[in-house]
Amino acid sequence: MRTKATLYERLASRIEAQIEGGSLRSGDKIPSIRELRSKSRLSVSTILKAYESLEDRGLVYAEPKSGYYVSERVIEAPAPRLVERPASPCRLETGDLIQAFMDSFANPANTILSSTVMGPDMFPHKTLGRLVSAAGRNEALMSRNHCLTDGEPELRRQLARRSLYQGSAYTADEIVVTMGCMEALNIALRSVAKAGDTIAVDSPGFFGVMQAIESLGMYALEIPNEPSDGLCLERFEDAINKRKVKACLFVVNYCNPTGAVLSDEKKAALVALAAKKNIPIIEDDIYGDLHHGLSRPRTLKSFDTDGNVILCSSFSKSLAPAFRIGWAVPGRFLKVFRKHRFSTSIGTPPLLQEVTTGFLKAGGYDRHLRRVREKLKLNKHRLAEALDRHFPKGSRWTRPTGGTSIWVELPRGTDTTKAFQTAIRENISISPGAMFSPKGCYRNFLRVTFGTMWTRRLERSLKRVGEILQ
Amino acid sequence: MRTKATLYERLASRIEAQIEGGSLRSGDKIPSIRELRSKSRLSVSTILKAYESLEDRGLVYAEPKSGYYVSERVIEAPAPRLVERPASPCRLETGDLIQAFMDSFANPANTILSSTVMGPDMFPHKTLGRLVSAAGRNEALMSRNHCLTDGEPELRRQLARRSLYQGSAYTADEIVVTMGCMEALNIALRSVAKAGDTIAVDSPGFFGVMQAIESLGMYALEIPNEPSDGLCLERFEDAINKRKVKACLFVVNYCNPTGAVLSDEKKAALVALAAKKNIPIIEDDIYGDLHHGLSRPRTLKSFDTDGNVILCSSFSKSLAPAFRIGWAVPGRFLKVFRKHRFSTSIGTPPLLQEVTTGFLKAGGYDRHLRRVREKLKLNKHRLAEALDRHFPKGSRWTRPTGGTSIWVELPRGTDTTKAFQTAIRENISISPGAMFSPKGCYRNFLRVTFGTMWTRRLERSLKRVGEILQ
Repeated sequence: MRTKATLYERLASRIEAQIEGGSLRSGDKIPSIRELRSKSRLSVSTILKAYESLEDRGLVYAEPKSGYYVSERVIEAPAPRLVERPASPCRLETGDLIQAFMDSFANPANTILSSTVMGPDMFPHKTLGRLVSAAGRNEALMSRNHCLTDGEPELRRQLARRSLYQGSAYTADEIVVTMGCMEALNIALRSVAKAGDTIAVDSPGFFGVMQAIESLGMYALEIPNEPSDGLCLERFEDAINKRKVKACLFVVNYCNPTGAVLSDEKKAALVALAAKKNIPIIEDDIYGDLHHGLSRPRTLKSFDTDGNVILCSSFSKSLAPAFRIGWAVPGRFLKVFRKHRFSTSIGTPPLLQEVTTGFLKAGGYDRHLRRVREKLKLNKHRLAEALDRHFPKGSRWTRPTGGTSIWVELPRGTDTTKAFQTAIRENISISPGAMFSPKGCYRNFLRVTFGTMWTRRLERSLKRVGEILQ
Repeated sequence: MRTKATLYERLASRIEAQIEGGSLRSGDKIPSIRELRSKSRLSVSTILKAYESLEDRGLVYAEPKSGYYVSERVIEAPAPRLVERPASPCRLETGDLIQAFMDSFANPANTILSSTVMGPDMFPHKTLGRLVSAAGRNEALMSRNHCLTDGEPELRRQLARRSLYQGSAYTADEIVVTMGCMEALNIALRSVAKAGDTIAVDSPGFFGVMQAIESLGMYALEIPNEPSDGLCLERFEDAINKRKVKACLFVVNYCNPTGAVLSDEKKAALVALAAKKNIPIIEDDIYGDLHHGLSRPRTLKSFDTDGNVILCSSFSKSLAPAFRIGWAVPGRFLKVFRKHRFSTSIGTPPLLQEVTTGFLKAGGYDRHLRRVREKLKLNKHRLAEALDRHFPKGSRWTRPTGGTSIWVELPRGTDTTKAFQTAIRENISISPGAMFSPKGCYRNFLRVTFGTMWTRRLERSLKRVGEILQ
């Protein structure tokens, strides 16, 4: 592994030097993998790894069925800066803003510039439709008059198999199927904490989590999330040393909204620290399968040796958003999780579990993910170009290596909450930064997403948002 | 109406007198509606009403496509007695028993003598299967990449139409679709109360509700439920005068486990009292459509004039248990309910909403309910006969006019929790009375159900339970 890593790194830096030096310019095609292999002694995997590392850094982009091209001036935008804030447990103050954002989805006249759910063209709905039709003809399935609280055994076996890709090896018996990841997170919170308790969360972080914490009468404690590197471990350690933190809930793989991934070293350290302090970790891994590079990042769960991590995930971002098939691997909290899962919504419809299982068993999921990956990388490139064209000078943004969202820092003084209100009157829906903190910070930040095929309509809308932000 | 009521009551009491006097004996056929109409001046509806009132009281039973017959000695069993208990808010002490009961469903070797979910033969799974297959071919539906938090507009319109049968007239905009009734109840609880608050509940009452209250950190306050007449209004009034009750959650139509219905007068009084005291009512109407007689009982919601009642229901008992299509009509709590619904599980799968809507639009639901009703009445009769044959002398049981369960009071000293443990070792699953009270009271009570076609296997198992109970 060591030698190979050196080889690919060397190749990548040679190409980088050519771009920096101007030998390769924006839009130039770089040699195809086949060409380069025939002209060098390098293996396909080495070349691919080099190209992917260049792509991850925004230096080149892939055009499906064509090849790799040098990016436009995108690389010039620096990453957003960390916002240091005094940490104290707090209640949600942005409920109305979140509601207004959610309601914007119900109006079909609106252009949605920021949904983390990918566009309809990204999902294999024809194959899923055929599986649904077959399920309708399956009399044994249709005459099922109950839902199992834990979920269908065959789906859980398929999920257990996939745990290997996450660096784990849990079994079907350790998995509980839920209604999407949101329900899994809710039940996980109920399983480890009660009203009045403090939960450490990502900041910026997903507003749905903050709403769930609020609705359970708990308090959120914001732990700063470095836009490019993920959770600040030192801040987390400070926080748990200073006050009673009952549990934590983090997205370490392609955090929403930044897209950051925590390094394996930090993941291991986080899991060890939480275990030592006896603080359960709820891990939201909903974006884990949407890596843009070749390999999937490891979960916190894969570093967990004593069942202290409750892994929560779903197929809502990666396969079938409207099926609501989620699951949890609750570790040592399995018993209490099962109890709460029953009294939350009894069980998950076997019909939708069967269709999902059928798709997984046929091997369609990995093929589908490969296609999605190519499209996401292209969309990400298009969006970054558009940001560069239309957003105010001095804007900074993240360069995620997975997921569907980019976190933009706008010049100081910009107010994205006001921009949201202006834009929605023009039927454009954006996600203002204030939604990503319970106290409504990040008012000069904006989440933009690239899960939908880039169109002229999106381009026009983004341009208009750029004007509003000026 | 007044004259008609007198006519049918007179006819019913004439037939009752013939049964009491021995002119009509067990198994005798009573005149068919057609015969009686041609030989008297009574209308079909008057005769039907009289027969149904006799049937509701267990004096006669209907055999589909044959006619009405005089019941066996079933009428001799008196109703269970009210258990008077000092009311104080409490935590759930029966969690392990409930879990053991729920786990008994996962073993296919077990004979289930007590599920309120009807057997597979009671549901229109072929028609639903055809609708599912059609949905799989519906590209617009399959390519939907999101769930609406409120639910699909067309399903909500269909639900709003049916509100007329419940004595109400709410609109589609007032309805939020959920994952079954259990989720609706959970969100309703979160919408009106917080951890530490006291919720008044039916006693005996559904254990899932008590688990939900427990898992939200709230306290349950048991209000005695008269086995034949439903909630004791005086006890409720006493309770709310004595202590702070934040909200209440009641099943007034075919309460689980007793099967009792509260009279319209008491429903009106309950709604007025709660409104006066500003105590929100969460109404669980999941059994409302399973009336055995001709007309559907009214909901509490139908007496509600100021939005103080949150009506919760689902199709899980009446149409498709494994679809998990539920809903709520949150009244003045609509805004907060919607917020919590999003952060609970985002939304309900459009596919399953579409299939349900298709069934409702085709008028299939009422036809299906009519068939179910006939089967339920027959099963109820068979179960009552079997109880009479096999249960200890001195047993008393309810004679429900809807739903799927009968509440049995066994002679003092009988311990149904112990009987549960003995029976489960012999692969028979029963529901001990202790499950229906957070503190594990009702140890000489048992819930039995009649939602499954009565078979020799069930008869043998019930006989064995009778022996264990001796």
